Amino acid sequence: MHDTSLIDDFAALSRIGATAGGGVERQAATTADGEARVWMKQWLHDRGFRVEQDRVGNLFGLRELRPGAPYVLAGSHLDSQPRGGRFDGAFGVLAAMHAADRLCSAHASGLLTPQFNVGVVNWFNEEGSRFKPSMMGSAVFSRKLPLADALAVTDVDGVSVADALRLIGGAGENDVFGDVREVSSYIEIHIEQGRELDKAGIPVGLVESTWAANKYEIAVLGSQSHTGATAMADRRDALYGAALIVVELRTLAERFGDVLHTSCGELTAVPNSPVVVAREVSMHVDLRSSSEEVLAEADALLHARLLDVEIAADVRIEPRVSHSWRGQHYQREGLALARDTADDLGLAWMPLRTRAGHDSTNMKDIVPTIMLFVPSVDGISHAEQEFTRTEDLSAGVDLLAEALARMVEGTSAEPHDDPTP
Amino acid sequence: MHDTSLIDDFAALSRIGATAGGGVERQAATTADGEARVWMKQWLHDRGFRVEQDRVGNLFGLRELRPGAPYVLAGSHLDSQPRGGRFDGAFGVLAAMHAADRLCSAHASGLLTPQFNVGVVNWFNEEGSRFKPSMMGSAVFSRKLPLADALAVTDVDGVSVADALRLIGGAGENDVFGDVREVSSYIEIHIEQGRELDKAGIPVGLVESTWAANKYEIAVLGSQSHTGATAMADRRDALYGAALIVVELRTLAERFGDVLHTSCGELTAVPNSPVVVAREVSMHVDLRSSSEEVLAEADALLHARLLDVEIAADVRIEPRVSHSWRGQHYQREGLALARDTADDLGLAWMPLRTRAGHDSTNMKDIVPTIMLFVPSVDGISHAEQEFTRTEDLSAGVDLLAEALARMVEGTSAEPHDDPTP
Repeated sequence: MHDTSLIDDFAALSRIGATAGGGVERQAATTADGEARVWMKQWLHDRGFRVEQDRVGNLFGLRELRPGAPYVLAGSHLDSQPRGGRFDGAFGVLAAMHAADRLCSAHASGLLTPQFNVGVVNWFNEEGSRFKPSMMGSAVFSRKLPLADALAVTDVDGVSVADALRLIGGAGENDVFGDVREVSSYIEIHIEQGRELDKAGIPVGLVESTWAANKYEIAVLGSQSHTGATAMADRRDALYGAALIVVELRTLAERFGDVLHTSCGELTAVPNSPVVVAREVSMHVDLRSSSEEVLAEADALLHARLLDVEIAADVRIEPRVSHSWRGQHYQREGLALARDTADDLGLAWMPLRTRAGHDSTNMKDIVPTIMLFVPSVDGISHAEQEFTRTEDLSAGVDLLAEALARMVEGTSAEPHDDPTP
Repeated sequence: MHDTSLIDDFAALSRIGATAGGGVERQAATTADGEARVWMKQWLHDRGFRVEQDRVGNLFGLRELRPGAPYVLAGSHLDSQPRGGRFDGAFGVLAAMHAADRLCSAHASGLLTPQFNVGVVNWFNEEGSRFKPSMMGSAVFSRKLPLADALAVTDVDGVSVADALRLIGGAGENDVFGDVREVSSYIEIHIEQGRELDKAGIPVGLVESTWAANKYEIAVLGSQSHTGATAMADRRDALYGAALIVVELRTLAERFGDVLHTSCGELTAVPNSPVVVAREVSMHVDLRSSSEEVLAEADALLHARLLDVEIAADVRIEPRVSHSWRGQHYQREGLALARDTADDLGLAWMPLRTRAGHDSTNMKDIVPTIMLFVPSVDGISHAEQEFTRTEDLSAGVDLLAEALARMVEGTSAEPHDDPTP
């Protein structure tokens, strides 16, 4: 039997920023994101949570069950890609809200002996489509990104994160957690964004580790000229150079097979006029792999090939920004707790690696963290057609609620990893 | 000796919409285009021209030398590409203004026996970067494009040509020439936008014919998904498909050599986010050739290759809009007049074909038309670095002025081609 309030709440949340194609468009700190946050605040407030926002727009709902103890946090993100799916992130936040609420009800009925307090979190700007980098809120929270740097980031219209947050009333004046030791552990549930669970017909994925990833911003610099009049031999066509890179990325992926993903999702030509040879193209490229050795080899091959492209298109290629994430493991204690919980609930599970980044990727570096997946039909994500069946959503919330209760009761009360200050 | 008033006027005109890189940005019906038009109107008014605008924003300066007779028109365009050069179009309009003014002075001194009246014209929106198609004003004037269609065209912000023209006071309420028979002939001077004259060290090009051109708008349709999580085999990446097309265009040009130009100058990916596989790319592709046979063969090869791209990238390719121009000749009488004039002035000349489109390409289809080129250093055009030497500008105006005088005196008083009603 499904929890009808969960399904009703998910429908209500999905109406905020709904697109005609059945998805949502709630990019970070837009009006729609602001509305989703207001909806979440009201929901939390109505159920007795203390609602707080930190300076980078992370939104918390807190319940003190054991005064002075650290908090177990559960959450994900409410922001979306442009014309994104309605499950990505939003399901995880809503699941955390329901799981925490059930837990508080159990506590009120004397059915829970808490060692920790409990909190729900909506991390700011996980998607990174409007403001880069992605996973911004959790990166600031985990001290990987300075607050001031995050607030100064601007979108294509020149609007800063600070100003955008101010417009939606999305930031607080203080940190909610002054010290990372005030958080004991973190749990997140998310749709898989791949088809492993869907293919296998298994309702739960326990995430063991992340893929390693390299992300680059590249500028291809050519020379602006007339498409009709300029002889082919005289062209220094930045768009031709960029196209060679996009094609090379696919060749690279084919060379390594399933262990390497390569992409260019963002490419902007300047001046982008039909009769003008582009003088500049900026592009975002990423390489991801389950193997750090493969990633290093692919990176070297790509950079060697960029030199060939410079010659072939008579352009200059400038690396602008790059980020690198090593493949990393989630803590073994958390995996064990999640596995036990799934077994106790009679839910079939399989271990998975995540190729996508999540806020839990940041959180696992500062506290013991559990990452759960539910199936996504055909693995579709970052698209309006993204879909997860109601029974899978419902099972996911049951698993999250039970795991969260065990964490709050201290079943996984593991010592902290050394937090990076 | 150079005409210093010409050089001073060119400097003044080049300050309107000037860019830091030495070019101009005066896209059609922008504020800067409006300022350039006001400057032109004032100049014409001060020298006794009657200033008129037609409903599509073509701006005329008219002098009646023989009441009731048709007009010889000379002109080009003041609008520019984004960060375009300061010579493209603007030189031709200014040269026409000075040539007509000299001719009127000669007439006032009794040195000219006019068979026709004379007019200067600034054609609206030759560049087509803000509002498509290019050569809009002359296309409406030559009855190739219905006025209502042109006025309804919108830019990327949804602003229509009609509204943009209203904002700059750029349109009149009536046609200036109610019947094409009120125009006897047309002459235009322009920078070459190629390097033939510059390489040969010859100051004047007489344009014999145009290249044939095919222009296409193509949409590449894939499926939006997550760049990290989606397996390579499951991707339907519109940007990968578009990149294959861009690369194919270059391969096609290499196959045919100098007789074929291929380009993609405008390419827009949707949603254009770094972690999203693009669901759609729209692109503007053009093929141009001196030979219609080559163009037809290239067109067939390209379309065959599009089918391969559909399979390789698992995308659908939809042709949206296409325009086709056959290679065409300028009238022989005009060429003869221009050649005689250049010879009489002692200016070396060479025959050329134009690969770029010009307003004269439209005008030659309704009246006898002469097209003159002056050298462009290194053939650079549609770029801030575009440059023509002062001595070449000056010689060009001398040639235009003398040819215009002969046209007005009836030396080239040829019967009309059948005007297309």
